[in-house]
Amino acid sequence: MQTAKNIQEVVNQEFVDLNWDIEPIGLYAPIGYVLALGGKRIRPTLVLMSTNLFTDKIGLAIKPAIGLEIFHNFTLLHDDIMDKAPVRRKQPTVHIKWNENTAILSGDAMLIKAYQYMSELPANKLAEGLAIFSQTALEVCEGQQYDMEFESRDVVNQEEYLEMIRLKTAVLLAACLQIGAVIGGANKNDAQLLYDFGINIGLAFQLKDDLLDVYGDVETFGKQIGGDILCNKKTYLLINALNNASAENKKKLNNWLAVSEFEPTEKIKAVTSIYNDTGVKSLCEKKMDEYFTAALTCLERVNVPKDKKKNLYNLSNQLMNREV
Amino acid sequence: MQTAKNIQEVVNQEFVDLNWDIEPIGLYAPIGYVLALGGKRIRPTLVLMSTNLFTDKIGLAIKPAIGLEIFHNFTLLHDDIMDKAPVRRKQPTVHIKWNENTAILSGDAMLIKAYQYMSELPANKLAEGLAIFSQTALEVCEGQQYDMEFESRDVVNQEEYLEMIRLKTAVLLAACLQIGAVIGGANKNDAQLLYDFGINIGLAFQLKDDLLDVYGDVETFGKQIGGDILCNKKTYLLINALNNASAENKKKLNNWLAVSEFEPTEKIKAVTSIYNDTGVKSLCEKKMDEYFTAALTCLERVNVPKDKKKNLYNLSNQLMNREV
Repeated sequence: MQTAKNIQEVVNQEFVDLNWDIEPIGLYAPIGYVLALGGKRIRPTLVLMSTNLFTDKIGLAIKPAIGLEIFHNFTLLHDDIMDKAPVRRKQPTVHIKWNENTAILSGDAMLIKAYQYMSELPANKLAEGLAIFSQTALEVCEGQQYDMEFESRDVVNQEEYLEMIRLKTAVLLAACLQIGAVIGGANKNDAQLLYDFGINIGLAFQLKDDLLDVYGDVETFGKQIGGDILCNKKTYLLINALNNASAENKKKLNNWLAVSEFEPTEKIKAVTSIYNDTGVKSLCEKKMDEYFTAALTCLERVNVPKDKKKNLYNLSNQLMNREV
Repeated sequence: MQTAKNIQEVVNQEFVDLNWDIEPIGLYAPIGYVLALGGKRIRPTLVLMSTNLFTDKIGLAIKPAIGLEIFHNFTLLHDDIMDKAPVRRKQPTVHIKWNENTAILSGDAMLIKAYQYMSELPANKLAEGLAIFSQTALEVCEGQQYDMEFESRDVVNQEEYLEMIRLKTAVLLAACLQIGAVIGGANKNDAQLLYDFGINIGLAFQLKDDLLDVYGDVETFGKQIGGDILCNKKTYLLINALNNASAENKKKLNNWLAVSEFEPTEKIKAVTSIYNDTGVKSLCEKKMDEYFTAALTCLERVNVPKDKKKNLYNLSNQLMNREV
């Protein structure tokens, strides 16, 4: 079995070794730029850890793992155009540094590169791995579509929100684990359990993100605190605050959602105060814990010796910011 | 062997049978809209005709053929955003009818759907077919990148232009023929000859398009005459006119390229007159005929009985607007 550090190094080295300095530079340089911005490379790490549950030959999974990380970065690139986001990982986004056409076309090329790497699945797993990947990729698009539609809707309920984050975030983590398992030779049941583990970890992870946006520390979170509040994003917190707040707080909250001119810090402070009054923080933490517990139960049921699962247990805890 | 009419009907029926009326409607309806705009379905027809050279089981090739047509329509959708084109096949483009975000995201979903259909290649041809497809898809992106870069460049030479249209247009036609051949069980040599046939037909087809833009009939061409002239597109005609015109005409031509305020019909008339003086029409026709002849030579060398090639000969002639 590989150590988590080993797996991380293998993944990082693969990205260092990729060469994007090829013609036409205008098409490929933005891809190199996006991938060099870094990130935690959670997805390829999940692929390799999942494969490693069933076999020591994790080399079989490296190309597909890269493909899945390229796919993830492709979604960030195109989402940033759609969201008009100027900054990603403290650097200007591609549509700002270059232009929108470049961001569209280089993104398209990334999606194709992702499939090119996925096509290096072991021959006897190719059809199965591709089927999971394509289905997942469509679901990620569906999640982004719902996310955009929710912006202009007056009411989004909790179930709709959870389904949106399942599609936009959780299914890709789940697919990484499932594809890794398939490559490793897992049986259907274990591959499905790892998929379900991924769904639950993904949902918990996104709820954590919603919490950190309001209650996080700007340094560790890496993003501006209160971003979701400023753009009225219908997160788990806001949806529940609108449902559960006192009549007075509900009126205040709706006022803050309606005003177009405001002092950012004032709005963040006021909305956070309503969240606190309404107890939505603990509501969100409870939901997150439910998903986290469900995730661990799925992982527990995977039919391999417990010590082999150490990497995935540790990574799950890190993702939830609770070091073991 | 299937008749051309039969093949066309099979292809058309497949597109009628696709259901895009699924949730989220905002993501899938634009895909249905784009595919319903029609077009000649040349690419899937080429796939099936190529498969049919080697086997009667053209059913094996239907899903990949659909995938290749969806891919082609995906490129049109994203190119139309980049080119800010308001109309396609006499209907508003997706980014006009919906909005730009929809056009980006629905296009992404189309590319994924294209791969989903390509993944239904016969299992023993899957890796080979996907490799051809991904390589080709990247080349099409490269072609679009060069096309955009050429717009802001002062000088583009003939070789660069021909390489750009090879990438942007010819390689996909070629890949359709090659993938069709691979599915049909062709040997490497015949599959390569069909690819080369496609490259040459593609180049001839694009040069024909350049000619029709200036010398075509608005009804049969389906687009406005003179569109390339109005936007200073560096076509084979313009590149050769700039190289070969008399000193006086070169000066006039450069003036027309520089002015930003003009009467459209006047500019079209003046530039066409310079093209006529310089004899670039016959130069372009000569080049087109060279490619067309090279294409037919490739097809001739494919090692199957001549009567089996009838469909491809006829389609080639139709593409060149010379009915047999």
